[in-house]
Amino acid sequence: MKAEIIAVGSELLTPHRLDTNSLFLTGELNRLGIEVQRKHVVGDNPDHLRDAFRGALERVNLVIAIGGLGPTADDLTRETVAELLGRALHRDEAILLWIEERFRRLGRAMPDINVRQAMVPEGATVLDNKRGTAPGLWLENDSRIVVLLPGPPAELEPMFTNTVVPKLEGLGGGVKLHSRQLRVAGLGESDVEQRVSSIYRSYSNTQTTILAGPGEVELHLRIWTDDATAAGRQLDEMVERFKLALDDHIFTTQGEALEEVVARELIAHGATICVAESATGGLVAQRLTRIAGSSTYFLGGVVCYSNTLKSAWVDVPAELIETRGAVSAEVTRALAEGIRRRSGATLGLAVTGIAGPGGATAEKPVGTVYLALANPKGVTERALRFPGDRERVRWQAAQAALDLVRRYFLYARRHGA
Amino acid sequence: MKAEIIAVGSELLTPHRLDTNSLFLTGELNRLGIEVQRKHVVGDNPDHLRDAFRGALERVNLVIAIGGLGPTADDLTRETVAELLGRALHRDEAILLWIEERFRRLGRAMPDINVRQAMVPEGATVLDNKRGTAPGLWLENDSRIVVLLPGPPAELEPMFTNTVVPKLEGLGGGVKLHSRQLRVAGLGESDVEQRVSSIYRSYSNTQTTILAGPGEVELHLRIWTDDATAAGRQLDEMVERFKLALDDHIFTTQGEALEEVVARELIAHGATICVAESATGGLVAQRLTRIAGSSTYFLGGVVCYSNTLKSAWVDVPAELIETRGAVSAEVTRALAEGIRRRSGATLGLAVTGIAGPGGATAEKPVGTVYLALANPKGVTERALRFPGDRERVRWQAAQAALDLVRRYFLYARRHGA
Repeated sequence: MKAEIIAVGSELLTPHRLDTNSLFLTGELNRLGIEVQRKHVVGDNPDHLRDAFRGALERVNLVIAIGGLGPTADDLTRETVAELLGRALHRDEAILLWIEERFRRLGRAMPDINVRQAMVPEGATVLDNKRGTAPGLWLENDSRIVVLLPGPPAELEPMFTNTVVPKLEGLGGGVKLHSRQLRVAGLGESDVEQRVSSIYRSYSNTQTTILAGPGEVELHLRIWTDDATAAGRQLDEMVERFKLALDDHIFTTQGEALEEVVARELIAHGATICVAESATGGLVAQRLTRIAGSSTYFLGGVVCYSNTLKSAWVDVPAELIETRGAVSAEVTRALAEGIRRRSGATLGLAVTGIAGPGGATAEKPVGTVYLALANPKGVTERALRFPGDRERVRWQAAQAALDLVRRYFLYARRHGA
Repeated sequence: MKAEIIAVGSELLTPHRLDTNSLFLTGELNRLGIEVQRKHVVGDNPDHLRDAFRGALERVNLVIAIGGLGPTADDLTRETVAELLGRALHRDEAILLWIEERFRRLGRAMPDINVRQAMVPEGATVLDNKRGTAPGLWLENDSRIVVLLPGPPAELEPMFTNTVVPKLEGLGGGVKLHSRQLRVAGLGESDVEQRVSSIYRSYSNTQTTILAGPGEVELHLRIWTDDATAAGRQLDEMVERFKLALDDHIFTTQGEALEEVVARELIAHGATICVAESATGGLVAQRLTRIAGSSTYFLGGVVCYSNTLKSAWVDVPAELIETRGAVSAEVTRALAEGIRRRSGATLGLAVTGIAGPGGATAEKPVGTVYLALANPKGVTERALRFPGDRERVRWQAAQAALDLVRRYFLYARRHGA
């Protein structure tokens, strides 16, 4: 079974908004064994909408449209699809009562325009919307399925999970998607490609995609098959071979973010961490606290932008800053040791750098980053240089800082510490 | 002139990747007076690619394809378009030399597969790629223009700006897009709608879109016209009327992020700021330092997650934390005053809250947030409650904290301080 997704809405054709619902839908469809073959974004224009639906219905047996089910004159999906499939629209009194009741509970009278949301094409199944006024619709036509969903993710997601998934289950046949997502830190895209290409090329039944993100590279392995056991065995085998080729650069084989891996390690070791950042300006702390329950391992952090605060808050000697520079291996080490001592955390992590565009010197160009991790036995340090603009340098610096913590635990484990 | 954008790549049909290049392209095209009418995402499949191009060429006079120009067997855009337009491909020796030279500078021999990137359809204009090996292509066919661009944004954006924009300029005719982007903090989407709907409904030539984001609402006003003076005058008039209706909730009429507005105010007043965060975990500091040159106004920040550090680092009395709770108006005020005193900044900003999912109590459910801003004359405080999950609560809390700073300067100005 193949699907196409049509996102409807003129705002999705401006420079300000993207269709993101299709990511959720694709994940759910793939789980059911349904491949998404094409995606479309169409404005609130009946001709374009009709054209997109007609094309999709010629190519695939499942067409999912998102949006355009609201009460205003712009919302054309319901009418356009009914007309295209030759279905008359009738008013569904149960939906109308339900919408009126919803407004009553909010203490308001239902505006007349909302009557449109109670119009249902002949033969359609109504999909309940627990979070809004626009019900979804399920239509079958010449062995094709058309599903119309509301645009707000808070309405679309529960509707899809509760009403569409049960109807689609089983329709996908035995062929399902089996996948793994590896994420790699400390290697560039072409280095990864070079190390793994001979491996993945030997598995012709597997789609392998290498994607470069800031400060990391992702490897997606995807097999469509009805033999779950064989797929699982082969993916495990591939992951083992990738591990040999990429060694300690792989930080997850389950698609987790780096901060989640670091959090897991800290918790497993009963360790706590405190950070002192300048160039990353709070990004490392923010990523470490993004995770629920982070207070078990994260004690706190200091963003010491001014040199005075580096000395006052983290005991970095003013002479050291003066002689070596605020962005230097020595000051970074002093920050890591100082923040560890001041907080009583197991680990003290420090980042300094030149994020740009200002502040660069001949020896320290934009992208220069120093990291230090003070631990109970000493300090690990790194001097790095990253390409890109301020935002990219900051993200890569935070990524490398978190990776330093991950590697600390990895080597401690390898060396039996 | 109307355009369609075709993003090519099977990874864009997975749950992990979105086409984001089309946002940049849409912004640039609109500036040139070219409307984007539809967007497509197609996998690395020649049939689907051909079908998408054929449809787009029937509907519009400018088709822009992104991606699929790489050297591997997956990269099919060049060949598919050449075949569809009936153009033979020939090897361009200048491009080949240039690619070989690029590899040589990186100290590597050019792999044989890269020869494909030197293949050019008959009659095509080659668009230089300063950042990668895949040149872009410009083709004209039966008064239609087809532009092929590489997928990586770092390659696509400069190529588009430097080579495509000059060729498109003037082609769009006199009709151009004129727009304003207002951003509003401290009001929900339906409140904004209620206050402004009668205003924008009276301008039938203007598309007005109200978009809700976390912690803010955006208002986009868009007029397509060849009369720039009239459009400018009308947009200014609309903005003035929106200002009356939305008052101090509008934080920008130029589309800036809230932290940019706050940064501008701090610089204009020669003021400095220091922050003490718990629930937002560094997000406020990170946003304030996202901006180039932030060291002129941002001295530093403290993320004090543990209660011990709240006392040790920001002098919050331990008894206060014990009697009132770490998340309380009193502790937040003490944090704001403490961080201001400890840093010597003009302003001390503090945020505490329950971001969830854990930590909630009957009186302080998930989403409870306290803010305090210590200034030279006293302290401003807020107690708020936000809906949503951990990420949304944190973002909204940071947004409200920054808005508190913005309003401080706004009222200071209004009261002649």
